[in-house]
Amino acid sequence: MQNANVSDKTIGRLSTYRRLLLYRFGTAGQSHIYSYQIAGLAGVTAAQVRRDLMVVGYSGSPNKGYRVEDLVGSIGEFLDRPEGQNVGLIGIGNLGRAILTYFSGRRPKLTIVAAFDSAPDKINRTIHGCRCYAVEEFPAVAARENITVGIITTPADAAQRVAETLVECGVRGILNFAPVALKLPPGVHCEDIDMTMALEKVAYFARKLARD
Amino acid sequence: MQNANVSDKTIGRLSTYRRLLLYRFGTAGQSHIYSYQIAGLAGVTAAQVRRDLMVVGYSGSPNKGYRVEDLVGSIGEFLDRPEGQNVGLIGIGNLGRAILTYFSGRRPKLTIVAAFDSAPDKINRTIHGCRCYAVEEFPAVAARENITVGIITTPADAAQRVAETLVECGVRGILNFAPVALKLPPGVHCEDIDMTMALEKVAYFARKLARD
Repeated sequence: MQNANVSDKTIGRLSTYRRLLLYRFGTAGQSHIYSYQIAGLAGVTAAQVRRDLMVVGYSGSPNKGYRVEDLVGSIGEFLDRPEGQNVGLIGIGNLGRAILTYFSGRRPKLTIVAAFDSAPDKINRTIHGCRCYAVEEFPAVAARENITVGIITTPADAAQRVAETLVECGVRGILNFAPVALKLPPGVHCEDIDMTMALEKVAYFARKLARD
Repeated sequence: MQNANVSDKTIGRLSTYRRLLLYRFGTAGQSHIYSYQIAGLAGVTAAQVRRDLMVVGYSGSPNKGYRVEDLVGSIGEFLDRPEGQNVGLIGIGNLGRAILTYFSGRRPKLTIVAAFDSAPDKINRTIHGCRCYAVEEFPAVAARENITVGIITTPADAAQRVAETLVECGVRGILNFAPVALKLPPGVHCEDIDMTMALEKVAYFARKLARD
């Protein structure tokens, strides 16, 4: 029951806390951490951290704080499927390759097992350990490999059609890098990332702020 | 005066509209487009599109809509510095390389001219046409190359220190991919992108929605 109706934002913060703990403290040998320390790193309040961590059912000691290793484990039990989840990426252009480069081999519980494209010269290859298929093969490959998460890195004009194929094949979570608003039925969770927009915004404000 | 106090969100949408126009209609030969068509692609209302485009000072014809080529040009005049802006990327790991792969050669007005890392084996090389330097060289290279925008792709524990160096060197716009909340002085615009968090969220909800 504790999992019911956990907000989007809480899930995002739990993911952030785990990574902060793994990368900042994993090698530094610090065994315990206080909520205010996590809060400082994540840019939220200590009360927020404590509220979020109640969701995963792990509470630290008032004196020593949270045990880092246990906390990472508890967040993992909450966020991850124990057997892992398989991800399919659609669109093997510049962006798709970049995303494959970034995610390959990073998350044992979340693996890009197949990539798809419509260009014949991109299929039947292996990129960063990931096998590439024709887009038409998605239904068969998704069923065989149990793909439940999709990453869309196609051009804008192909993204909606691809998203519909994913949903028809049972995918309920989509990470969309195409600069277009996908129209999706209820019961599908989509996160949009637009790196070019972010860079253009930053550049615009850099210019404006330098003038001020 | 029309540029004064344009919101963050408007700038983001203008960037999106331009890309939708460039990639969806650039090659399809459609010369004009109506605000409701742009709205449909971008997932906003037609009134929003018209309001945003008033900012760039281009108005279409009531009968024929906006001329695509002119609209792209007007948005560019508003968003871009005519002489272009130079970008420095700090952190040449898996993520930094992915970002270099993605952005290299894509935007004539916004170029990653130099990359920086602290690992000796990563410096004095050229990756995707981009020269790599030691982090300590940032001030000199930034001044020489007129770098006004920074992209941070370091591990979380290095990001704050790097951000401070950027700000000291006059950078006023930062695109931060490290999973940490940067503490920045007023007058610096920062956009955060956390791809791993986005993927973990999508995977969590995919699992949860599949169960429902």
